[in-house]
Amino acid sequence: MPLSPEQESEIEAARANPQPTLRAVSPGMEAQLYTAHPVLDHGFVRVIDYMGDDGAIVQAARVSYGAGTKHARDDTGLIRYLMRHWHSTPFEMCEIKLHVKLPVFVARQWIRHRTANVNEYSARYSILDREFYIPEPGALAAQSATNNQGRGAVLEGAEAARVLEMLKSDSARAYDHYEAMLSQDGQQGLARELARMNLPANIYTQWYWKTDLHNLFHFLRLRADSHAQYEIRAYAEVICDLVRDWVPAAWGAFEDYRMGGATLSARGLECLRRMLRGEEVTQENSGMSKGEWREFREILG
Amino acid sequence: MPLSPEQESEIEAARANPQPTLRAVSPGMEAQLYTAHPVLDHGFVRVIDYMGDDGAIVQAARVSYGAGTKHARDDTGLIRYLMRHWHSTPFEMCEIKLHVKLPVFVARQWIRHRTANVNEYSARYSILDREFYIPEPGALAAQSATNNQGRGAVLEGAEAARVLEMLKSDSARAYDHYEAMLSQDGQQGLARELARMNLPANIYTQWYWKTDLHNLFHFLRLRADSHAQYEIRAYAEVICDLVRDWVPAAWGAFEDYRMGGATLSARGLECLRRMLRGEEVTQENSGMSKGEWREFREILG
Amino acid sequence: MPLSPEQESEIEAARANPQPTLRAVSPGMEAQLYTAHPVLDHGFVRVIDYMGDDGAIVQAARVSYGAGTKHARDDTGLIRYLMRHWHSTPFEMCEIKLHVKLPVFVARQWIRHRTANVNEYSARYSILDREFYIPEPGALAAQSATNNQGRGAVLEGAEAARVLEMLKSDSARAYDHYEAMLSQDGQQGLARELARMNLPANIYTQWYWKTDLHNLFHFLRLRADSHAQYEIRAYAEVICDLVRDWVPAAWGAFEDYRMGGATLSARGLECLRRMLRGEEVTQENSGMSKGEWREFREILG
Amino acid sequence: MPLSPEQESEIEAARANPQPTLRAVSPGMEAQLYTAHPVLDHGFVRVIDYMGDDGAIVQAARVSYGAGTKHARDDTGLIRYLMRHWHSTPFEMCEIKLHVKLPVFVARQWIRHRTANVNEYSARYSILDREFYIPEPGALAAQSATNNQGRGAVLEGAEAARVLEMLKSDSARAYDHYEAMLSQDGQQGLARELARMNLPANIYTQWYWKTDLHNLFHFLRLRADSHAQYEIRAYAEVICDLVRDWVPAAWGAFEDYRMGGATLSARGLECLRRMLRGEEVTQENSGMSKGEWREFREILG
Repeated sequence: MPLSPEQESEIEAARANPQPTLRAVSPGMEAQLYTAHPVLDHGFVRVIDYMGDDGAIVQAARVSYGAGTKHARDDTGLIRYLMRHWHSTPFEMCEIKLHVKLPVFVARQWIRHRTANVNEYSARYSILDREFYIPEPGALAAQSATNNQGRGAVLEGAEAARVLEMLKSDSARAYDHYEAMLSQDGQQGLARELARMNLPANIYTQWYWKTDLHNLFHFLRLRADSHAQYEIRAYAEVICDLVRDWVPAAWGAFEDYRMGGATLSARGLECLRRMLRGEEVTQENSGMSKGEWREFREILG
Repeated sequence: MPLSPEQESEIEAARANPQPTLRAVSPGMEAQLYTAHPVLDHGFVRVIDYMGDDGAIVQAARVSYGAGTKHARDDTGLIRYLMRHWHSTPFEMCEIKLHVKLPVFVARQWIRHRTANVNEYSARYSILDREFYIPEPGALAAQSATNNQGRGAVLEGAEAARVLEMLKSDSARAYDHYEAMLSQDGQQGLARELARMNLPANIYTQWYWKTDLHNLFHFLRLRADSHAQYEIRAYAEVICDLVRDWVPAAWGAFEDYRMGGATLSARGLECLRRMLRGEEVTQENSGMSKGEWREFREILG
Repeated sequence: MPLSPEQESEIEAARANPQPTLRAVSPGMEAQLYTAHPVLDHGFVRVIDYMGDDGAIVQAARVSYGAGTKHARDDTGLIRYLMRHWHSTPFEMCEIKLHVKLPVFVARQWIRHRTANVNEYSARYSILDREFYIPEPGALAAQSATNNQGRGAVLEGAEAARVLEMLKSDSARAYDHYEAMLSQDGQQGLARELARMNLPANIYTQWYWKTDLHNLFHFLRLRADSHAQYEIRAYAEVICDLVRDWVPAAWGAFEDYRMGGATLSARGLECLRRMLRGEEVTQENSGMSKGEWREFREILG
Repeated sequence: MPLSPEQESEIEAARANPQPTLRAVSPGMEAQLYTAHPVLDHGFVRVIDYMGDDGAIVQAARVSYGAGTKHARDDTGLIRYLMRHWHSTPFEMCEIKLHVKLPVFVARQWIRHRTANVNEYSARYSILDREFYIPEPGALAAQSATNNQGRGAVLEGAEAARVLEMLKSDSARAYDHYEAMLSQDGQQGLARELARMNLPANIYTQWYWKTDLHNLFHFLRLRADSHAQYEIRAYAEVICDLVRDWVPAAWGAFEDYRMGGATLSARGLECLRRMLRGEEVTQENSGMSKGEWREFREILG
């Protein structure tokens, strides 16, 4: 269970205290504030704060004195136009702050997105909890034979059992020794900044993470993609739902132009034009490598 | 007058509509929202939105589940500790969005601060207003004889009058021609993206500018400094007042450790220690250049 | 003429002094170093320094101990794969430093690319030269009737002559007054940081600009695009030629996947699939707005 | 031993092949290129490439056409002036690319410096080596009693032996199981992206890391500081030596104004002025907290 009763009550207290504000308010996001959305076995995503709404995107694009337009439909049209033509700066005018609990190996992928603000729980200063990510049986996959950085079939039977047993027992032993090294009971106790090095990458950490909507969309396009590692994708998908509630018009444009869209190369466009003229195009006469051709065919459905 | 009656009424409308929120609220900032604070002769600064308060800095530093501590005094102590030890990431958890109207030559200095989000009024898309910065008599300064990038005494008499006359008449003529080139009355009319090139750097532009508190402090340290050009300092000083209202504890720490503080070099520290031991230290035996020594003496008062 | 004889001889001196290095060397770039490539009427682009070559991209992608592979063909294949799958970090391992002379209104667009390092000629510290951008007759375009931020037909006859006359005479007068205000002949002389405000946006400035190859590609995709303003596109096209000489394999991949490619929305892909199945698709049954449909048809050729 | 014979020979090959270049060359850095400088028990730092030298800083500050000044002494004076007055952009004109092998827990601190380019060895794509950081006896320190994120005395005797035994045996077991899970011998073999989660934070990873000199100085000021964790400081100190060889004048200014300097608060300056006037200042009448006062006294020596 990710939250203690004390933590639950802190969250409830935060949700029980509405105050008046003159700022732009997103009703969909207010409904989500502070609540912990579970991810994986011990993780979560919580919205701590947000700035702006769909109207704020329009307002910034127009550098206007008042709020957005009166007509939500006009705002949606402008937002779609901005997204289609890669006008990214108005989307930067919305900001979100999340509290995330996640395994260290997921955090290591996540942190590569540099245009964000981060405060991570410090294992130099504090002691980490005994919480480790142990995959669900359905997530325990073999190495892909075709994709060097992907997964194949789900492991089964004795092999799956062996893997789970190793992950669990190594985590438990590593944490037992972490505690034993830290202990000041009859000994000095190792420095926390050193003891933490014994902990494996499936231990959970947590952080406050803040970014703007443009950079969040970039994160989601890469991490909610089907090629992303399942564990980070699980977080990205929860965040997608939050963004849909926060800025529905911007989300709609993002879904159409980015998540559901595709980029074709100059060669791909040339092949496409030949196909639309009724020509037979094959990998051999396409000018593409086998890998490119396969990806091109997937885009065309 | 910077605002039209229509703009004034849009601002009033925005201020007349409080809504409940569960987010952290800064009372001092709510009182400022949307109002245009005049700067120079036609410029202003308006707060459009903000995220976080002093408590949010503490909350992020602790990666906590609830709000900051119960005791404002503890928060202030922690914030001072963070500022003193250059722990900048918790300050990045607060964000502010401003609407600024400013002369182009000020905008060109301002934009050099890269860690910010900007949407500027587009002179490709729209026509700029006939508004130019003409300095107050007290701001019409001669070139400094000692500082290659600074000002000396205020110009007086005929020279001051000539300068003002040139600035005014050149602005007026440039704008007359701008309009004449754009006009589609009996002619095609030059493209806006070209016509704008005739306008001088004292014309006003405007933008939405959004940044986090850490980077805002960096901006203010450089631009509210006595060595900054007067015109950008006028904006920085108005923003200082807004920050004081927004996050009073963080502002207090910034004022003590950054704005009012000073950095000494290794040589400077060595001289200082000698002075405290009662030794006579002069520029000659200090190891410093004349410029360094003068600055060192100024720090010591 | 953009360069004085003294500047020309400084450039020649720099080109006359090869030294041995153990670093990766790009022969195509060595041939370009320091030479000023003219742009517009008084501008230029010069390569001052560069880091890395095609092999450096491969080497970083593999985190290898030695140089790239022995076979240029393998490097090209990997580089195309990286570009196609948006693996941007290996391209960040190459860096370029340019010296650019450009009109201020172009500089104001350019500087919006934030992930770069810039040192601009300071008009607080120094006096700007009397050099203004005056468009060629073929670049003197009317406002577009269909595109709010674009150009239409070229101006002709009396209108063109009037525009050129205004641009020239206003530039000359502004500069005359700039000099008159600065003059310390029989008067104090206005501070440089103030006098510059009288200068119009077609005056030339110059800067050192340094960025990595990934961000340079992003700049070129937006600024060498046919929708970019002609004046900044003129610079971008010169830089394209330099990049082609510097990292030919990366340039080829960029040209195929970015410059010559196109992004289709989810709706666009759906329409395309219907068309490939032989269905008649029109704007009316496409689900797209008129603007989207027109852009979609342009992509399909 | 950090390098295999094959890697050593790749490095030798790279060092054996000087080529002519017209770029700025730093002799001190050429002597360092590619060589692996050992850090901790299995780590290293290698310079892969660099851009610029002391002259390049001066050249950019002046936006000049040729190289820096003829007189190294003038360059040094200007560089000291730039450093003293926080003119950071000229230092951004130098760039360095390093290949670093380091324990994961060090990498996690290091990556928090966002203004850098990184390519890390991928444990999704490849198998990590069996190399773990095991502290030297002298680095095996107890938790500090006074500093929540620091170290106290060195552990001794049985406690030290127990800690080393735990670190070694847990690393070995984790790696044995990592291999057992990956093995495709008689089983499918777990995906690499999952198996890696069993590995502790003292395993070594490696990356290419590229940054500019200004941001490198910021990194070094924080990480070569006596309050930094010993393990990252070991890397920072090796890099300090490399920078000294690369840009000796900039290093000298950095050492004087940043590494060896100190910042005093407004309160600190006030106390200092009282002390210089001969007044007796104590913590009680200083207006400082005990922690601040202690740090203030340390600065005064």
